[in-house]
Amino acid sequence: MAKLNTTTPSGFPEFSPAEQRVVRHWKKTIAEIFEKHGFPLIETPLVERTENFEAKGGNPKEIYVLDRLHSDSADQDSAKSRAIRFDHTVPLALFVARNFNDLAFPFRRSVIGPVMRGERAQKGRFRQFDQCDIDVIGNGSLSLANDAQMVVIIAEIFAKLMPEQKFVIRINNRKILTGIANFLGIEPRKYLEVIDQKDKVSADKHKQMLKELCPDEDQMKMFFEKGFKDKNFNESWGKGKIEECFNILKNSFGELNEECLQGINEMEEVCKILFKNFGISHLNCIFDYKIARGLDYYTGTVYETNLLNEDGSINTSLGSICSGGRYDDLAGVFTGKDLPGVGISIGLTRLLWQLFDAKIIEPKQSSSSEAIILFRSPELLSKAIKIGQKLREKNIAIENYFEPKKIQKQFAYADKMGIPVRVIVGEKDIVVENRGNSEELKAKIEAIL
Amino acid sequence: MAKLNTTTPSGFPEFSPAEQRVVRHWKKTIAEIFEKHGFPLIETPLVERTENFEAKGGNPKEIYVLDRLHSDSADQDSAKSRAIRFDHTVPLALFVARNFNDLAFPFRRSVIGPVMRGERAQKGRFRQFDQCDIDVIGNGSLSLANDAQMVVIIAEIFAKLMPEQKFVIRINNRKILTGIANFLGIEPRKYLEVIDQKDKVSADKHKQMLKELCPDEDQMKMFFEKGFKDKNFNESWGKGKIEECFNILKNSFGELNEECLQGINEMEEVCKILFKNFGISHLNCIFDYKIARGLDYYTGTVYETNLLNEDGSINTSLGSICSGGRYDDLAGVFTGKDLPGVGISIGLTRLLWQLFDAKIIEPKQSSSSEAIILFRSPELLSKAIKIGQKLREKNIAIENYFEPKKIQKQFAYADKMGIPVRVIVGEKDIVVENRGNSEELKAKIEAIL
Repeated sequence: MAKLNTTTPSGFPEFSPAEQRVVRHWKKTIAEIFEKHGFPLIETPLVERTENFEAKGGNPKEIYVLDRLHSDSADQDSAKSRAIRFDHTVPLALFVARNFNDLAFPFRRSVIGPVMRGERAQKGRFRQFDQCDIDVIGNGSLSLANDAQMVVIIAEIFAKLMPEQKFVIRINNRKILTGIANFLGIEPRKYLEVIDQKDKVSADKHKQMLKELCPDEDQMKMFFEKGFKDKNFNESWGKGKIEECFNILKNSFGELNEECLQGINEMEEVCKILFKNFGISHLNCIFDYKIARGLDYYTGTVYETNLLNEDGSINTSLGSICSGGRYDDLAGVFTGKDLPGVGISIGLTRLLWQLFDAKIIEPKQSSSSEAIILFRSPELLSKAIKIGQKLREKNIAIENYFEPKKIQKQFAYADKMGIPVRVIVGEKDIVVENRGNSEELKAKIEAIL
Repeated sequence: MAKLNTTTPSGFPEFSPAEQRVVRHWKKTIAEIFEKHGFPLIETPLVERTENFEAKGGNPKEIYVLDRLHSDSADQDSAKSRAIRFDHTVPLALFVARNFNDLAFPFRRSVIGPVMRGERAQKGRFRQFDQCDIDVIGNGSLSLANDAQMVVIIAEIFAKLMPEQKFVIRINNRKILTGIANFLGIEPRKYLEVIDQKDKVSADKHKQMLKELCPDEDQMKMFFEKGFKDKNFNESWGKGKIEECFNILKNSFGELNEECLQGINEMEEVCKILFKNFGISHLNCIFDYKIARGLDYYTGTVYETNLLNEDGSINTSLGSICSGGRYDDLAGVFTGKDLPGVGISIGLTRLLWQLFDAKIIEPKQSSSSEAIILFRSPELLSKAIKIGQKLREKNIAIENYFEPKKIQKQFAYADKMGIPVRVIVGEKDIVVENRGNSEELKAKIEAIL
């Protein structure tokens, strides 16, 4: 028999045992924060009718469909009519369409789970990856407070998961950009795409792109430097003087057209709620005219989130770690109804892969337990099991070592798993050792024993 | 344009908004109990090389493979060479093979997630469903304490999730059955299959099956009534006299052959650890010779779990809600190594579907929040948001209603979501109402405000 190739297929990643613990911690924390803000986890099938993905603009080249190993032409599963989700937004739209009458609006949901895209597999790009999304969908209208809430949730997640790491949430409003484009007589979509490339291509290359877009260099310059780059604008923001900032923007762009003004007004409203009511620091959230999310379907507020280097500059090698925005029309194609929404998404698999790769996170422990019970000789196993049960009844996550091996082998297991606290059951005594930073747990265990 | 069919594809289920909350609660609870006992969550890809599934005996008719919507023959993803997992056991074997040198043995892992099988879709049978599995894998050997631990974990899960519901875990050891079959000169596999049908077909039908298997009716009867059905056996078990039980079995079957005796000895050891060390009630766990798991690859201990009717009889309409067993050879085909294991699996999607269908669980609330903040007039929204932030900072999961709607509309939302506690922000006062059983949360909120 030919030797089997047991490696993972290209683009279908698997984290190492120690990395898995970080994945679990992140998912658990993200889910808890989503829920704390009123976004229940809702799971939809991995598989939907292909036609529904096509209707919502999935890239047909990247869509995976189901087939049977032994095809049976009578079965719908074998005719490319069943496709695997490539994001969580289309399944959300379908869920809303299917459950419309049972839902209370605004409808909030979170989801943490895999999607698949047939991208060209390359370093750090995967064909299966987890996305963590939240969205809130209004029936006919949706308050801008929801746009502000997204920033609050992003900030809470990264402050909790990476307390030592500085980050910034950059926000903008698409209407300001499309308003400027329309004023300049440039196709808005093209304008957004060029703006979007600002941090992604070289300065020279970007200059060239701008020039092609708007041959009148002075005019284009004005729209990059006026207002957005106004020294007073940045100073006012730094001091949290939100009204002053937006007065500067209104003076610069507000009179261009109705669209621009509306974008500025929306942004101002979002920022007031964000800074004054939610109490978010203006240092964690900045206005950035370069945030366009060019390839997406957003129509209002847009978000990107970046880690900061030690000098306060943006870590560009990682890209945005959490993005999203407001969209006017979630499920019109499915429901015929006006359902505006706003949402954000964390590309978890890619993000964690990058954080491991850059050694920003270095996983050490592969066990889920902080503590383990070892025993000095085989006849002490029953005593060790009883102690384990007693501790677990007090809700301590502690595993029992069960194999009749020498104590050195048991220690080697605990070391390899990275379990810091060891309860060692001897004939005459029980010793609790802490080889990590778990003094508190050690004391807790000692108090129970 | 033809109207789109937005329903879920046949066999790919979706729970209702209120049911989703139960799904989340079950998954969260199961994961926490798995981890508490030392089984970290490990996620493997949904997709593996098809050859590896075939090598481990997947039913080829049920295996789903990937294809691209726009096939590109140069890509491996379009040649039936990538298949979607049909269980969590083969992916576990592959994970162990891939990470062998990085793992500490015994290696424990849990997994909660979807698998796909191309079964004929029918009521309560799905093509995509979640399974919750744990397994522990030894390198060369694995203590029987691990077999006992599985029962402890099953018991803890169902006691926590369905505290009012009585259940029983039925255990057996395959070696006893195959020993008897070999003694009788019956093909063990056929014997196991017939035993397995005992509770699944009519008494007459089963009698007929037994007759075909072993034409000597007296002989067959003896092996069903001797020992297993011994009055003293059942009485001793009821009184927790495990040694007495196993002496009866040894007298009945122990001398048939070595295999039988080994099975009885293993079972006795597991039961001693279970009842004496782990302290499990003998009422929650019974010995049942009819548990065979005929179609699986088990070689020692086997488990099934059933809910009990009010009269203490087994709820046969639901079938086993958690099953598993010990297997000698997890990954020999991939690693060439001797890796014995023991594990259990809960077919979560099917189980919850049945519990909802039978109204054993009746979901009422679709929100993840126990509390919500409402406001009497639009200008009070900013105050309401501040209160929400204050409460969330104290780790209370409370959602804010953001839309500038009349208070009646806000109440209607809270009612539809089933949120029991409402904090109503007025001009001069803040009122906390409890319309459910959440007096404690109400008091906690009042104390913070």
